[in-house]
Amino acid sequence: MAQQERAIRTRRVIVEAAASVFDERGYEAATIGEILARSGVTKGALYFHFPSKQALAEGVLNEQLAVLLLPSRVCKLQELVDLGLLTAYRMRRHPVVSAAAKLSLEHGMRAQFGTHLVTAWIDTTEKLLREAQEQGELLPGVDCAESAWLFSGAWTGVQIYSHILVERRDLEERIAALFRHLLPAVAVPAVLGRLVISAERAAELGEENEEYAARLTREGAGEEPVAAG
Amino acid sequence: MAQQERAIRTRRVIVEAAASVFDERGYEAATIGEILARSGVTKGALYFHFPSKQALAEGVLNEQLAVLLLPSRVCKLQELVDLGLLTAYRMRRHPVVSAAAKLSLEHGMRAQFGTHLVTAWIDTTEKLLREAQEQGELLPGVDCAESAWLFSGAWTGVQIYSHILVERRDLEERIAALFRHLLPAVAVPAVLGRLVISAERAAELGEENEEYAARLTREGAGEEPVAAG
Repeated sequence: MAQQERAIRTRRVIVEAAASVFDERGYEAATIGEILARSGVTKGALYFHFPSKQALAEGVLNEQLAVLLLPSRVCKLQELVDLGLLTAYRMRRHPVVSAAAKLSLEHGMRAQFGTHLVTAWIDTTEKLLREAQEQGELLPGVDCAESAWLFSGAWTGVQIYSHILVERRDLEERIAALFRHLLPAVAVPAVLGRLVISAERAAELGEENEEYAARLTREGAGEEPVAAG
Repeated sequence: MAQQERAIRTRRVIVEAAASVFDERGYEAATIGEILARSGVTKGALYFHFPSKQALAEGVLNEQLAVLLLPSRVCKLQELVDLGLLTAYRMRRHPVVSAAAKLSLEHGMRAQFGTHLVTAWIDTTEKLLREAQEQGELLPGVDCAESAWLFSGAWTGVQIYSHILVERRDLEERIAALFRHLLPAVAVPAVLGRLVISAERAAELGEENEEYAARLTREGAGEEPVAAG
């Protein structure tokens, strides 16, 4: 078990080094040599876990959902808001989240890696909206598939604008404002009035997320946490 | 005058050739040689108008706003919706619009070209929202600067998702759905109920845009139309 835990830790160190290099240089310009140097592991260990640069990028993409875990909420629209706010918070502080966005969205990347991260986000959003709908949180006539697609696409555009204009310094504020703009079209007024949507909540969620991920790792006895959704 | 008109036409042919090459290959991979071959003009004519690849890209960026002209509307929120729908329609059919988005948004491009197209879109949106506010079309408490930023960012994210997932085939539908999601947060109900927001309207606007641009060119007696906003 100790050996398995060590292997998981090594794998994570490599993924984080790869993420920081992809994030700074972009996929094309990144080299395995720089990832190796930054990770501090042996060449053998790196190639044991990831035989190629493409495998490293796929490791980063798969890791993204695993670092965005929150306990489930009674109010499913609050859970949706929380996931969006947490992702904004983590994207500014965790290269895996930022690099995964870059690998999913940039020109030429989808031929290489497909669109699975984009569709995973839409699917997670749709699942939460359907649960919200079953609980009576949504206005009549809301098309969950359409709204999920829009919430995800709009979130991504806000992230890109914040990145281009101010290096993401206002990302949590902008994502909170996005939810305040989108939710009146889908939420019943009684639920809408109770939702907590603010940049301060994003910071609280960031702390909660770290504690929750640590607990899942302990409980899983060395197993990696699986993304809810 | 005939000579000036010919120069304007040549310049436009070059910009459109450059746009189609940037759109297909991306800025880095594009070559002046391919743009020259596609434009069919002489090397001398191309370098007379655009001394470098960077100048060609700036020509594409400046041209984008000029191909998105519509007559002004009485209802300013309808004008905002129309501009968003028209841009979606033209982006699928006009390489200048599509290439300008790529040049504005992709990694490494903002160091080269700045963020002026992004801020121009936010400014145009804010101007229309302020006019809507003065006419009583907006709910009390709407922050026009914040909403303009969000409308623009969300529009861009929807465009990117539609591009990644289905090569923009559903872009007009998605942009219409985006406006249906965002406008309840800012529009007074009486105005909201009267807005026409549909993919069919996008096609009508495309035709109106071509007629309007042709009329402006005729009236300007060879002068290029200037973007409203």
